[in-house]
Amino acid sequence: MLLADAMSAQFPVTDRTTIGRNPGRGTRDRAAAHAILDEGLVCHVGLVADHGPVVIPTTYARRGDELLLHGSPAASWLRSVGKGTPVCVTVTHLDGIVLARSAFHHSLNYRSVVVFGTATRIDDAVEKATALDAIVDHVVPGRRAEVRPVRDDEVAATLVLRLPLDEASVKIRSGGPIDDDDDLATPEVWAGVLPILSRVGSPEPANDVPDGTVVPQSVRARGGGALK
Amino acid sequence: MLLADAMSAQFPVTDRTTIGRNPGRGTRDRAAAHAILDEGLVCHVGLVADHGPVVIPTTYARRGDELLLHGSPAASWLRSVGKGTPVCVTVTHLDGIVLARSAFHHSLNYRSVVVFGTATRIDDAVEKATALDAIVDHVVPGRRAEVRPVRDDEVAATLVLRLPLDEASVKIRSGGPIDDDDDLATPEVWAGVLPILSRVGSPEPANDVPDGTVVPQSVRARGGGALK
Repeated sequence: MLLADAMSAQFPVTDRTTIGRNPGRGTRDRAAAHAILDEGLVCHVGLVADHGPVVIPTTYARRGDELLLHGSPAASWLRSVGKGTPVCVTVTHLDGIVLARSAFHHSLNYRSVVVFGTATRIDDAVEKATALDAIVDHVVPGRRAEVRPVRDDEVAATLVLRLPLDEASVKIRSGGPIDDDDDLATPEVWAGVLPILSRVGSPEPANDVPDGTVVPQSVRARGGGALK
Repeated sequence: MLLADAMSAQFPVTDRTTIGRNPGRGTRDRAAAHAILDEGLVCHVGLVADHGPVVIPTTYARRGDELLLHGSPAASWLRSVGKGTPVCVTVTHLDGIVLARSAFHHSLNYRSVVVFGTATRIDDAVEKATALDAIVDHVVPGRRAEVRPVRDDEVAATLVLRLPLDEASVKIRSGGPIDDDDDLATPEVWAGVLPILSRVGSPEPANDVPDGTVVPQSVRARGGGALK
């Protein structure tokens, strides 16, 4: 993905990334999209099955200007993706509940990326193993080096899709309520934001981990605080 | 939705709710689906646009055995939904990062509901206003009664879709890692769970709220703790 630096800092404007609703909240900035994607653990993958649309949550990683999507060969939706299936992948972070002076102007603060493109299956075993490593390290940075390498049979038992980050739109809403002027004349009605806070808690060892087993660096760092 | 009590406690088995991957994690239990839907604030709506699949985050409410989906008429994806558009609506809660002794068995703890069906637009103004009230009260229970009623022009400026909860599948993964026997023979490798915790913080008043304005009951209750 060395070409990334030479690419436009903006995704192109296309029919499907033209933002109809609240265009002021939209951007096609690559850096903004990358930041949202890098913070997420779950994406929602949409595809068209025989019977219509399907939306499935799964984990992923961004690697340069592509998304790597993880799945099991037993998942029928993923099996159907071969050498070029149109998908839409969305990652959303909810940041707050916006309480206005009218029900109508209630809203949510959020950041979302909607990626459109053609997903292809990675078939080469070495490429696939590298992609799986990237997904593990996306979820818990540094974890991959702390466990044994993926075996060939494990690679064979996993599906990984690649989706280029060529066409995407970003929407961000932040800040307080936007009330009608008339409603601002009712100062007795409270308005504001209830923030939504998500964090990673302290590590909880599995039942069969012997007492005294060292919690590794990757897990301590991801847990967001020094363990006592 | 008085008929709900007389309905099956399980969603029917259909081609699209047959769970291929990890069927042991799947259920079609209505109560489990309702609990997941009631806890969420954002769903991901998938539909098939002219150019292929689209997945959009939006807010919603469950009312008995139907979902009410909210949007603006300016959102082109929503405008395309008329008197019968196939959609797939997914709600996912992420509960933890599962760290196994091998990269392969790393996983996420989550709860998700995938609903399939045909969405229809609510056109009747009274029905629409009632549905909007339900969505506001889903996000912040009791808030609707604390603000002025929705005006006719506001109702006209909003789209609300109805989706029956007739066909859905639930997947839940919880608990610790499931390691291969061989890997259990490496007790020096830590394994366990990093919980993901989401909570609603304390209310943050808008800049133009006069000092001393009372934070209403709905907001205090949603904020999850008494305000000092």
